[in-house]
Amino acid sequence: MIVWALLTSVGINLGLCLLFFTLYSVLRKQPSNLEVYAPRLVAAKEGSEQKNGFNFERLLPTAGWVKRAWQPSEDELLSVSSLDAVVFIRIFIFSLRVFGFAGIVGVLILLPINYLGNQLDVDFDFSDLPNKSLDSFSISNVNDGSKCGVVCYLLHYEYGYISSKRYAHYYSSKPQPHQFTILVRGIPVSSGSSCSETVERFFTEYYPSTYLSHAVVRRTNELQRLTSDAEKLYRRLVHLKSETKPQQRSRRDGFCGLFGRKVDVLDQYGKKLENLEDNVRMEQLSVAGKEVPAAFVSFKSRLGAAIALHIQQGTNPTEWVTERAPEPQDVHWPFFSSSFTFFSSSFIKRWISKLVVVVACAALTILFLIPVVIVQGLTNLEQLETWFPFLKSILNLTVVSEVITGCISFSQIEKSACTKMLWFTIWNIFLANTLSGSVLYRFNIFLEPKKIPGILADAVPAQASFFIAYVVTSGWTSLLSSELFRLLPLISSIIKRPFSGKDDDEFEVPSIPYHSDIPKVLFFGLLGITYFFLAPLILPFLLVYCCLGYIIYRNQLLNVYAPKYETGGRFWPTVHNSTIFSLVLMHVIAIGIFGLKKLSLASSLTVPLPILTLLFNEYCRKRFLPIFKDYPVECLIKKDREDQNDPTIAVFYDKLRTAYKDPALMPKRHPRSTDDHNSPLLQAGV
Amino acid sequence: MIVWALLTSVGINLGLCLLFFTLYSVLRKQPSNLEVYAPRLVAAKEGSEQKNGFNFERLLPTAGWVKRAWQPSEDELLSVSSLDAVVFIRIFIFSLRVFGFAGIVGVLILLPINYLGNQLDVDFDFSDLPNKSLDSFSISNVNDGSKCGVVCYLLHYEYGYISSKRYAHYYSSKPQPHQFTILVRGIPVSSGSSCSETVERFFTEYYPSTYLSHAVVRRTNELQRLTSDAEKLYRRLVHLKSETKPQQRSRRDGFCGLFGRKVDVLDQYGKKLENLEDNVRMEQLSVAGKEVPAAFVSFKSRLGAAIALHIQQGTNPTEWVTERAPEPQDVHWPFFSSSFTFFSSSFIKRWISKLVVVVACAALTILFLIPVVIVQGLTNLEQLETWFPFLKSILNLTVVSEVITGCISFSQIEKSACTKMLWFTIWNIFLANTLSGSVLYRFNIFLEPKKIPGILADAVPAQASFFIAYVVTSGWTSLLSSELFRLLPLISSIIKRPFSGKDDDEFEVPSIPYHSDIPKVLFFGLLGITYFFLAPLILPFLLVYCCLGYIIYRNQLLNVYAPKYETGGRFWPTVHNSTIFSLVLMHVIAIGIFGLKKLSLASSLTVPLPILTLLFNEYCRKRFLPIFKDYPVECLIKKDREDQNDPTIAVFYDKLRTAYKDPALMPKRHPRSTDDHNSPLLQAGV
Repeated sequence: MIVWALLTSVGINLGLCLLFFTLYSVLRKQPSNLEVYAPRLVAAKEGSEQKNGFNFERLLPTAGWVKRAWQPSEDELLSVSSLDAVVFIRIFIFSLRVFGFAGIVGVLILLPINYLGNQLDVDFDFSDLPNKSLDSFSISNVNDGSKCGVVCYLLHYEYGYISSKRYAHYYSSKPQPHQFTILVRGIPVSSGSSCSETVERFFTEYYPSTYLSHAVVRRTNELQRLTSDAEKLYRRLVHLKSETKPQQRSRRDGFCGLFGRKVDVLDQYGKKLENLEDNVRMEQLSVAGKEVPAAFVSFKSRLGAAIALHIQQGTNPTEWVTERAPEPQDVHWPFFSSSFTFFSSSFIKRWISKLVVVVACAALTILFLIPVVIVQGLTNLEQLETWFPFLKSILNLTVVSEVITGCISFSQIEKSACTKMLWFTIWNIFLANTLSGSVLYRFNIFLEPKKIPGILADAVPAQASFFIAYVVTSGWTSLLSSELFRLLPLISSIIKRPFSGKDDDEFEVPSIPYHSDIPKVLFFGLLGITYFFLAPLILPFLLVYCCLGYIIYRNQLLNVYAPKYETGGRFWPTVHNSTIFSLVLMHVIAIGIFGLKKLSLASSLTVPLPILTLLFNEYCRKRFLPIFKDYPVECLIKKDREDQNDPTIAVFYDKLRTAYKDPALMPKRHPRSTDDHNSPLLQAGV
Repeated sequence: MIVWALLTSVGINLGLCLLFFTLYSVLRKQPSNLEVYAPRLVAAKEGSEQKNGFNFERLLPTAGWVKRAWQPSEDELLSVSSLDAVVFIRIFIFSLRVFGFAGIVGVLILLPINYLGNQLDVDFDFSDLPNKSLDSFSISNVNDGSKCGVVCYLLHYEYGYISSKRYAHYYSSKPQPHQFTILVRGIPVSSGSSCSETVERFFTEYYPSTYLSHAVVRRTNELQRLTSDAEKLYRRLVHLKSETKPQQRSRRDGFCGLFGRKVDVLDQYGKKLENLEDNVRMEQLSVAGKEVPAAFVSFKSRLGAAIALHIQQGTNPTEWVTERAPEPQDVHWPFFSSSFTFFSSSFIKRWISKLVVVVACAALTILFLIPVVIVQGLTNLEQLETWFPFLKSILNLTVVSEVITGCISFSQIEKSACTKMLWFTIWNIFLANTLSGSVLYRFNIFLEPKKIPGILADAVPAQASFFIAYVVTSGWTSLLSSELFRLLPLISSIIKRPFSGKDDDEFEVPSIPYHSDIPKVLFFGLLGITYFFLAPLILPFLLVYCCLGYIIYRNQLLNVYAPKYETGGRFWPTVHNSTIFSLVLMHVIAIGIFGLKKLSLASSLTVPLPILTLLFNEYCRKRFLPIFKDYPVECLIKKDREDQNDPTIAVFYDKLRTAYKDPALMPKRHPRSTDDHNSPLLQAGV
């Protein structure tokens, strides 16, 4: 019955995948869909030439895009996208290698054993586990060790490879504001002077040769509200101007005016806008007094910034707290203006806010079990699968909103959300599912650690067929439908098209949502590693997923997504840790299974494996992790010396002085003609 | 019966204490004991004047020394001793405050409740615990919280006070070599060049303005052996010269010479010494090639050293690893020359050696249970007490020898030994004793955390009388006998006296053994905090101990011990952590007791207390701990600027260049006359 259900599920999803694949091949060639399928190219004005031509080929499904996505080398991908994108693609390459190796071992060793053994269908149906022969287990134990060794080797290789890429990328980078800047918090403002004066005095005193400038952070929430109101009004005005003819305006006026006086709508809107702009200017003046005890401090050299970053500044460690500045376009300004004043002005408050986030996340993780349990209690396997997307979207929302408190940049938010999403996924999809039905009751096991292997060994193999179905539905189909086919953007574009006309202003190139995509890929990695020796049948499905993912994400990175920021591959340590966790989980399950089978020797032989894996992880933390945190003196000084010989550095310093200015504080003029209009967002991205 | 045994024990020990006190008062005035009771003064040649005078007062026991130990202010103590000594004395002041407060609460609240209650002897005999009234428990719960609050307040105050002392001490310090120097390990020596050249090239390249000099570490174990042989021979020669007359020498020659040729012993020894000295010189030349990839690198400014210390140097984080340099006289050279070559040359080896130490310590802790269990199985309470000193001395030996691997300075060794001794003491004396008899069986409880409070609540109160006796014997009596009376040094001095004569050369001023004394005091703190509400009767005994300790240790620091190094109070975080642990342990026991008594409300009300305590600890870690690790930019630059105006800094730089030279490499000449003789140890302490 389960085999049949699985085959049906695979069949249906295979059909869906083919459908989406075909549709995508056709739809992507239609000029009207360019904004959905190639927004990057549209933004770069590269795709505009195709718009007018029409030929029959446009209606034929072709696979040319696969070739185009396959062809570019890693360096080319790096040059058109970011190092983060390359690192993301490396996750697929890494997974392909791991599962490729696991697949070969599975076919060459595990399958023959199973074939020679008593049962033929042990692969994914583990209900007959207790009857299995002893030999296969001792061999799978050996495999366990050898696979662990191979995965560790691959992890080490990949960590080293990405480290070298990170250095190479840094060496080849132009001077960038965030390399020269730090964020200082907890500035001890004395009563007599302003925050800006205090910062100026402190850094000219202690960094006389390298200090360049600073930008004190101000509370701009009121100003942001006014500016965004003015912006909306201006857009409406521009729209009115371009859409309606003067006659229509005057005719409409007649309908609106209740006092009988004829007023031009455009004039009315114009006056309102002027009033708002006056308010904005007044607020801009008053905002100068709304200082937050935090500032972006820029230095003349990277080494200067690194020194201020790494060494405690004041005698009180909770004052003059320094941290890395994000890229200017990466700064999450609303955080500074709203919660920053309340949460982050003093050390204790900031610390309490962090605690609150941790407690809230823990509570959320536990509370999220309730819907899972309810769903599990009410429904069977198929319904569970249909429910999951809904639950996951709740999860997505709550995690993201939770995580925003405390992060000063979008990249930090995404990185934090990525880790949290990963653990939420593992907790809620893997553990809550495998320990099915009685999760809340079994929650106790975390207080009795020695029972964990046994319980996992009991529960995990039973869910093999569910997770194979999960790979097919949540992996293949959702990858093709939501990632490649971009179902939601496509629908919203189709709906908007008749109304919006040529309103290019609101068009924005999306950025890849690392915080939801990386955990998904890593979760499949976890499934592959833990089910490797329990149900090798999962491997071909995962291999297909990885191949699809590799091609599709390359295509999307080249055509759809534009990088919003560059962390230089800082996501990789998360990938590494997740893989280590998967390995240890595999070992724990193996120990549990050998324990259940009363193979105490095999069980004891497996015990050193998780310890060795953790030691390997500890080694990698020492060897590679520092590289993903900071750049060494060697790099900093080499780059600084390059700059000294660079004649354009003076221009860069000038840009640096204003790089970290809150976009709300930029002087803004709304021109009366539509041609030279710039959105404030573009202005901010200096 | 138990009360009677306790009273006997207290009586006997009180008598012993009085005896030691009286004997000390008399003996310390005898000139012949000056080297035992005032070696510091002897070394400073202050005590030499008294040697000849004799009066009757010398035979009368007086308490004048108590006054002299009491009088000096903290600043005076700091000036004659070290900040570490002041911090050590602060432990007693802190304990006195805590126990003073606890005593007042105990007398004013707990005792009346017990008096009004049904039983009068609940204080230290907890066998009738289940009959106790509800009220006393709810009140002791309130006390629990209030005491926790007071202890936390005192901890905070003390941490802040010692932090400010640390800064003040740093500001007032003269330029010292270790402030300008770092130790670099994992130097990547390329095949073409020497280690010294590599270091020189790297630091002149990246620190051109602040780099001063370096001293590559060399394997000198062979040289050390030769030097110490030469030293011994030279001592014998000097002794022979001064003791025997020429006639005796020639007469003795006749007995010795088997070949009939008459040889002067002095000449023979002199020739041997010359040969050895030749060997030493040859080894000194050959040692130049035995470079270890590690070096002490000195800078011209404190900030320069701090930058190199805090920022990763090379692109590979396992190369150019920097750490703080100890004071020159604090360097543990044998470590460099022996184990360093094997263990610490490469990153991986050093890391493995650290792992080995951790594993060995864990194994030792567990194995040490076996003698404890045997002793507990064989004997009763009194015998246990007599066995403990023996067990503790084994412990001492093994811990200290264990800990030496991996520490490059004596202060590090002592600090590491201090922490390990503390946990060993808590584990082996507190836990192993309270969970008596069936320890090995109960070892399982650490795998079932939720059972711990119940088991502790069951076991800890039962041991109250044992620990009161422990305070009296191991606290009072051993403090007076071994610390004040210095029983072992006194005996060894009495035995040596007839043989040694006036051999002042071998006389060395001892340093205070922090690694064994701090854990002892902290363990009594733990007893006081955990038994505060279980058996308030322990408090007066602890108060007496603290008063005794305060006076005696002040006396010893002024007269006996000379500081061997200065860590600037780095021991305090250990004291803080230990107190936090004691508080949490108290809460856990309270929760367990309320649980046993089925007072679930009181039990639930206690649960937030350990969490709040841990949060407080987390806050202190952020607020104060960084101060005990490094000095901030503000301090470094202020001190550096002072130096710039100091005319003597050039002289200091010259001294700095040679400060970190292995004493074995110092050119050594043994003069033929005894007057200008200097031991190599004194030469090294430049």
